[in-house]
Amino acid sequence: MMLETTIAAIRPADEAAMAAARELHGRLTKPAGSLGALEELSVRLAGLAGACPPPLPEPAAVAIFAGDHGVHAQGVSPWPQEVTAQMIGNFLAGGAVVNAFARQAGASVTVVDVGVATPLHTDPAVLDPAVLDPAVLDPAVPRLVVASVRRGTRDLTMTAALTRDEALAAVRTGIRIADELIDAGAGILLTGDMGIANTTPAAVLIAAFTGADPLDTTGRGTGVDDPTYAHKVAVVRAALARHTPDPADPLGVLAAVGGLEHAALAGLILGAAARRTPVLLDGVIAVSAALAAAAFAPTAVCAMVAGHRSTEPGATVALRHLGLDPLIDLGLRLGEGTGALLALPVVTGAVRVLHEVATFDSAGVAEK
Amino acid sequence: MMLETTIAAIRPADEAAMAAARELHGRLTKPAGSLGALEELSVRLAGLAGACPPPLPEPAAVAIFAGDHGVHAQGVSPWPQEVTAQMIGNFLAGGAVVNAFARQAGASVTVVDVGVATPLHTDPAVLDPAVLDPAVLDPAVPRLVVASVRRGTRDLTMTAALTRDEALAAVRTGIRIADELIDAGAGILLTGDMGIANTTPAAVLIAAFTGADPLDTTGRGTGVDDPTYAHKVAVVRAALARHTPDPADPLGVLAAVGGLEHAALAGLILGAAARRTPVLLDGVIAVSAALAAAAFAPTAVCAMVAGHRSTEPGATVALRHLGLDPLIDLGLRLGEGTGALLALPVVTGAVRVLHEVATFDSAGVAEK
Repeated sequence: MMLETTIAAIRPADEAAMAAARELHGRLTKPAGSLGALEELSVRLAGLAGACPPPLPEPAAVAIFAGDHGVHAQGVSPWPQEVTAQMIGNFLAGGAVVNAFARQAGASVTVVDVGVATPLHTDPAVLDPAVLDPAVLDPAVPRLVVASVRRGTRDLTMTAALTRDEALAAVRTGIRIADELIDAGAGILLTGDMGIANTTPAAVLIAAFTGADPLDTTGRGTGVDDPTYAHKVAVVRAALARHTPDPADPLGVLAAVGGLEHAALAGLILGAAARRTPVLLDGVIAVSAALAAAAFAPTAVCAMVAGHRSTEPGATVALRHLGLDPLIDLGLRLGEGTGALLALPVVTGAVRVLHEVATFDSAGVAEK
Repeated sequence: MMLETTIAAIRPADEAAMAAARELHGRLTKPAGSLGALEELSVRLAGLAGACPPPLPEPAAVAIFAGDHGVHAQGVSPWPQEVTAQMIGNFLAGGAVVNAFARQAGASVTVVDVGVATPLHTDPAVLDPAVLDPAVLDPAVPRLVVASVRRGTRDLTMTAALTRDEALAAVRTGIRIADELIDAGAGILLTGDMGIANTTPAAVLIAAFTGADPLDTTGRGTGVDDPTYAHKVAVVRAALARHTPDPADPLGVLAAVGGLEHAALAGLILGAAARRTPVLLDGVIAVSAALAAAAFAPTAVCAMVAGHRSTEPGATVALRHLGLDPLIDLGLRLGEGTGALLALPVVTGAVRVLHEVATFDSAGVAEK
């Protein structure tokens, strides 16, 4: 689907469905308001779906977008770039944390190469460059989609990371994956990411879209020492000074200082919102992409659920800008979609209450 | 089992198993420490089990202890006392929030009448006063155990709520239920509670065991207005002044100012700890009981996992005293075991990582 068509399809929340959900909550056998944030979450999802109760968010599909980053050459990460490709092998073999959590949650895992720099060492039989087949939502079989735009971005400290056309291609891949997963039956999409050095472009994106200082948007990623951290902040600051990204031009921002997985995630979020399907955000990469999606289409925020609060400081800056409160706050900083998967039962539970809990009247329970 | 035997069976955490879990975490394909609180949780559970990895906490069993409270006569709750019995009917019919969450989590629900004041309106066929049968862990069939010590406590503003023998009988019921559920195969126990007015004795218990002021341990429960709240604080303060409970005598504290469900929950926790089985705590009733359990046996804390942070201020006071950080903080104040059930996938996920995630070596992923 074209980006413009997708953006045009995103509608505001349905106020009548939200009012119906609030009214229903008042009749269920529990003290009013006693489910706290779950009540408001269920109301938001009713508004997104335009129905009360909204559909149970099942089955769940994790989409892990993987890419590499030219800025890796600046020494912003202690990990070799080859780890991106190696971790894709781990995802497809089912050996990563995201796989363990996805199996537990009954969620499928789709890995999308949108721009890995080094060769993938995978069985050619699992390569699936064409349209996803109907078994795409099988939680037992992680799948690979090859949709590489280029073998990693350019170094954003030297030049634009991507051309506008390259950024657009990645955004469109994200939209396509959202459509295919929802067409296959997914009731909720979960964002995942893999890309050594990808917290650096995330920090630049968050500063660009929120106006926050790089000191507040830059974290230690998978673990950098003090000198590397200071260098990373300087890299983020230099990137902003070189490109002066305009937050009113999200495609331009993604091209100048983004990553291919960030752009694709922005597309996934827009695609989900256009289909009135919730998208559960993982950590700092996801929320930096969510800022881009919200810049494309402010009402896309209605489809977003913040899974967790990453320890990366930029995640909190981005969530505040989006007006989203995370469901889980456990000091995670792994990415892959792991934080979103831990939050999934909370989302499902919030909706399930509207489907399954008895009313005072039906259960013969007195009210206060 | 006798209380003394149970307490004597509770052992400190196994340091070698904890060290093995920390070492294993360093070899798994993820940055060290990137799973935050889940890593420390999995280490604690290894210490409890005395094994690395510890067993997956499956299947899960919720035990809901229900009782009524003489202090209800003081107007500390806006709900009629009959709601306790009516909600038991709702639990057994599968219509409450705890049932919806338990079905989702695959957890069984056992309701234990330890002291409901008004008649239960339940099908006699579901009454099960004898030993639990092997189907006890069937998530589809909530079960009732009748083990009523008396039809509600006495009014703690007038006299001791219970005799020491009554309190002991309730504690022993909790130990028995823990043993039976673990004998039936449960890998983790979740605390649940039902009892109109039971946040008042919880507030007194928390003040008694921690020394905190009643203003800091008393909340609005299921929803009381300002004058009722002020009255409730005064009731808690008067109870402390009348009984001067001695925290070194936990059975005496439970008898003077507790509830039958609080005493039974303390027993459940001790029973789980004696069997080296984790017990996932729900809200303010659970943590007030956990303080009693810790007063009986300080090392019982090794078996406790704090499921969530209730909005009741006393819950935070109690968790701090126990040294426990809750996994979920979503503004819940429902009880029943609902907060524990929402946290269960986090606990399972934390352990699953140690079972299923590949090492750098086995997955062929480079380290930094």
